Amino acid sequence: MNNCGKIAIIGGGSWATALAKLVVKHEHHIGWYMRRDDRIAEFKRLGHNPAYLQAAHFDINEIEFSSDLNHIVCEYDTLVLVTPSPYLKNHLQKLTVPLHNKFIVSAIKGIVPDENLVVSEYFHQVWNVPYENIACVSGPSHAEEVALERLSYLTIGCADMEKAQAFANVISTEFIKTETSMDIVGIEYAGVLKNVYAIAAGICHGLKYGDNFQAVFLSNAIQEMNRFLTAVYPAQRNISDSVYLGDLLVTGYSNFSRNRTFGMMIGKGYSVKSAQIEMEMIAEGYFGTKCMREINGHVGVDMPILDAVYSILYEHNTPQKVIQTLTDNFR
Amino acid sequence: MNNCGKIAIIGGGSWATALAKLVVKHEHHIGWYMRRDDRIAEFKRLGHNPAYLQAAHFDINEIEFSSDLNHIVCEYDTLVLVTPSPYLKNHLQKLTVPLHNKFIVSAIKGIVPDENLVVSEYFHQVWNVPYENIACVSGPSHAEEVALERLSYLTIGCADMEKAQAFANVISTEFIKTETSMDIVGIEYAGVLKNVYAIAAGICHGLKYGDNFQAVFLSNAIQEMNRFLTAVYPAQRNISDSVYLGDLLVTGYSNFSRNRTFGMMIGKGYSVKSAQIEMEMIAEGYFGTKCMREINGHVGVDMPILDAVYSILYEHNTPQKVIQTLTDNFR
Repeated sequence: MNNCGKIAIIGGGSWATALAKLVVKHEHHIGWYMRRDDRIAEFKRLGHNPAYLQAAHFDINEIEFSSDLNHIVCEYDTLVLVTPSPYLKNHLQKLTVPLHNKFIVSAIKGIVPDENLVVSEYFHQVWNVPYENIACVSGPSHAEEVALERLSYLTIGCADMEKAQAFANVISTEFIKTETSMDIVGIEYAGVLKNVYAIAAGICHGLKYGDNFQAVFLSNAIQEMNRFLTAVYPAQRNISDSVYLGDLLVTGYSNFSRNRTFGMMIGKGYSVKSAQIEMEMIAEGYFGTKCMREINGHVGVDMPILDAVYSILYEHNTPQKVIQTLTDNFR
Repeated sequence: MNNCGKIAIIGGGSWATALAKLVVKHEHHIGWYMRRDDRIAEFKRLGHNPAYLQAAHFDINEIEFSSDLNHIVCEYDTLVLVTPSPYLKNHLQKLTVPLHNKFIVSAIKGIVPDENLVVSEYFHQVWNVPYENIACVSGPSHAEEVALERLSYLTIGCADMEKAQAFANVISTEFIKTETSMDIVGIEYAGVLKNVYAIAAGICHGLKYGDNFQAVFLSNAIQEMNRFLTAVYPAQRNISDSVYLGDLLVTGYSNFSRNRTFGMMIGKGYSVKSAQIEMEMIAEGYFGTKCMREINGHVGVDMPILDAVYSILYEHNTPQKVIQTLTDNFR
């Protein structure tokens, strides 16, 4: 595969917008599925996404917007999925056309609920997409900074390295450096776990643990991630690579991470419910915690941080006590 | 060795003060060498260090202060060294009594200049102290947070694990958790390199690289550190442990790190000289960079970050260009 064919973006959030900007810069044409027609109309009128990354301007003539997912899937060869994982199945419900001959690129950092599968496994098992036609894109990437053209590094995971490179070529610019990797499942799990750990980092911050502890926490978190990845998907992998460690760091240290903010509110004493209401959204790591806990029920890795977050969010145990017990096992 | 005998602190800075507070809490008596008599007098009058961590109060009756290093070395069994590495030899010049029968605990994160040795090697080679009588204490530890009794984790490295544990017992409290390790040389080099990397992180920040890049930078830095440590001192070592990765993170992400601040000024366009004058001090990593560069001249590890910092600080190459070249090799 020398190129990715016609490329469409599925999703309308900030990361979808940042990726669309990269793709359209290279391709000069994209399809773009958004659920809401009113938002599409506003986007066309303003020349930018009305809700996210307003500073990122687009040439509207280069975009075919549609709220008809079937149309977009029919017309485009490569589908870049950038929806929150809990809503993915909802979007796909409308689909009446096959996906097996498409190139699926997941920029989703979450587990598909019910099936409890990472996105690549889900498209393979449920939509019969061969693994060589599924990729993921990940790495430490605040959408805001990508949109501002600040130097960032993205990794494309795919069983077929040529296809990974083909998509890498599409999004590479002077300010986006790309790597390819065959560790797609490892990268996907890392993207889920870092949101769980960002919630935990937020809880600790809310409980007034300091910077010394934050560094210890992240050292223990990357080790827990490594244990899980090694058990679930043994591969040649350097856990210190930016797609694993870097992505954990950028989220764990960020005051803009929704997952970390959610955790911080829990640490400060908000109930889970009231933190969610206050944030007017549900942090993706909230769902990720439950899914990962269920998955690890089968894998059986020692994951004290995951267990602690689950215990606080779903069993309503006191953050102070849970975190204090957790810290006794840190090193 | 069930205990450390009589313990003295050598040095008067903030980390010396934080460690003194930990030791005296356990021992109820310490010796404390400070160079300046006027500062000792002020300390006695105020009940706290007049220059550092003023909030940390001491019971003066529990401290024997002295500006006579020979007296302190004669009277005490364990010497906790907490001076900047460039000044260590200066202090020791005055010494007329032997050191070989003392237990040396280094809290210094720097190389001894001229000899270009880490502190444990220096005391072994120059002062004939057997390796089993030399320890180091390290880990992610802003002195301010330790003084405020915020949960922190310290690692004591020593060839003799019983002695490491004995000193660990002295400084362990409810808010200081301790680990022991035999990787003393690895821990010492990690403590030097993290200051070099903190300078580099500061330079990048000064040049307006963002948070995405910062995470990528630190992922590459920990890998460079791991390469060097593996080459110079092969040992059972998990580079993600808090004494390596955590210490790098707390310094690399800290706005209070002198090394990072120094780098930031360089990145913003200050000359090395004017940054040093402005800061009224020389960041330890400035010396560390030169020493590490010389040491790696013999070891021969691929260390592009170290080389970049050296090139900026000592060869006066333009930070923009040097860092841009560096980023091309990151992943």
